[in-house]
Amino acid sequence: SLPHRPMAVTMSQNQSYWASINAEIDAHLKQAIPLRPPREVFEPMRHLAFAAPQNNAPALCVAACELVGGHRDQATAAASALHLMHAASFAHEQLPLTDRPRPTSRPNTHHSYGPNIELLIPDGMMPFGFELLVKSDDPAQNNSGRILRVTTEIARAVGSQGMVDGQYHELECPQSDDNGWIEHVSKKKEGGFYACGAACGAILGGGSEEEIEKLRRFGLYVGMIQGMLHGVGRNEKGLAKVVEELRNLALKELEEFNGEKVEEIASFVKD
Amino acid sequence: SLPHRPMAVTMSQNQSYWASINAEIDAHLKQAIPLRPPREVFEPMRHLAFAAPQNNAPALCVAACELVGGHRDQATAAASALHLMHAASFAHEQLPLTDRPRPTSRPNTHHSYGPNIELLIPDGMMPFGFELLVKSDDPAQNNSGRILRVTTEIARAVGSQGMVDGQYHELECPQSDDNGWIEHVSKKKEGGFYACGAACGAILGGGSEEEIEKLRRFGLYVGMIQGMLHGVGRNEKGLAKVVEELRNLALKELEEFNGEKVEEIASFVKD
Repeated sequence: SLPHRPMAVTMSQNQSYWASINAEIDAHLKQAIPLRPPREVFEPMRHLAFAAPQNNAPALCVAACELVGGHRDQATAAASALHLMHAASFAHEQLPLTDRPRPTSRPNTHHSYGPNIELLIPDGMMPFGFELLVKSDDPAQNNSGRILRVTTEIARAVGSQGMVDGQYHELECPQSDDNGWIEHVSKKKEGGFYACGAACGAILGGGSEEEIEKLRRFGLYVGMIQGMLHGVGRNEKGLAKVVEELRNLALKELEEFNGEKVEEIASFVKD
Repeated sequence: SLPHRPMAVTMSQNQSYWASINAEIDAHLKQAIPLRPPREVFEPMRHLAFAAPQNNAPALCVAACELVGGHRDQATAAASALHLMHAASFAHEQLPLTDRPRPTSRPNTHHSYGPNIELLIPDGMMPFGFELLVKSDDPAQNNSGRILRVTTEIARAVGSQGMVDGQYHELECPQSDDNGWIEHVSKKKEGGFYACGAACGAILGGGSEEEIEKLRRFGLYVGMIQGMLHGVGRNEKGLAKVVEELRNLALKELEEFNGEKVEEIASFVKD
């Protein structure tokens, strides 16, 4: 179980942990999205990749990899792929569609490009994410099986049983009075995506099946918290109790892990 | 080189060859896109997957696999993935975007769903295509390396250096007077996609590097022909000479292949 420490210390230490992970993912992405021809396609891709709001599923992927004893480098490509999926999905959410009412759950964004570009470029970012991931296949590491498994995990999480299902409900289903709607959308959108990030990190780091499933649930709970605090539940009162329950469920999943990294990853829901 | 035979015989025989391949890809897709929950997501996915106009890159993938001595089943999943990419891309091309002029090179389509759905569902179809492909990884066949390679091929062909580049030029670059614009768009859109289909089939069927590259070029030429006859060049006169040159280049790539399948695949540009 987790040792108790003064909060201030935990925070400053762990902020630098997450910051260092995010800096590595950013560097990997900057290097991976070159400013090469066709520039008129890659330049907006690079812009849209970094214009999306912060999403912590990629960082969680790296942290989960380290928690199970893997090296950070083993998860950087998958984390970058996850970021690209998030950024592509975000850009499409902002598209000005004819006859499309803007859901109140979504903030307004500034558009740097015309709608053709903001439709088209994300269609290139998704496959590019898969390409980055598959390129991290390394015969020397004999990790093809893990890469293939992670490809399936990410495809499912961003696809029709994951993020697309959440977005569908956000757009097309009327919001109910109780918090059930917020829970469903948060679970499918952020929950499934963070669960995927954590599970992928554990797979790539060589975690056991039990560790992978524990971290998947940890990701689900922390993702749902994100959705409730910063996503569809953003303007909703009365979610504090649900969030607190999810936080406890998340921390419970970490109980059987050991080592210095446990506190780091736990700080995700404690700070 | 290719034996000469009466055209009527060639056609009827080869039509049944392509028809049988397309029937298998269709059956694979119908079985792969189940009518399962969330139905409101999978039902339009199934619709949009089959609403797209015929594209022959998937069939070419299967034919290339057979040409190099592989079994049809080795390429069906990749062919289905290619079809999903094509259908997703087509659905996004039809989206009614605010402030988006409809390019004259594109026909009007009937919309069965609202714009939210026609934006969102293709975002699920692309990852689903990758999922289908990766699921065809079979430890018994020890084909992980081939599957990973084909994943990269498809990601590149549908991404920013391939189809997205072609679509970008179609939408955002003014059409020039000569046929250079049509050639560029046809090369990037259909050319790159058919080249990918043929190369993927050859990879999955166990072709040599030389065979893979020959079939990639064959695909490029036949794809460009498709673009010129049925894509951006559809309404253009005066392409007959270019098309004839491409046809000859395509057939030249087949000269060193042997076996009964050579005539089948050659019929792609002869009928």
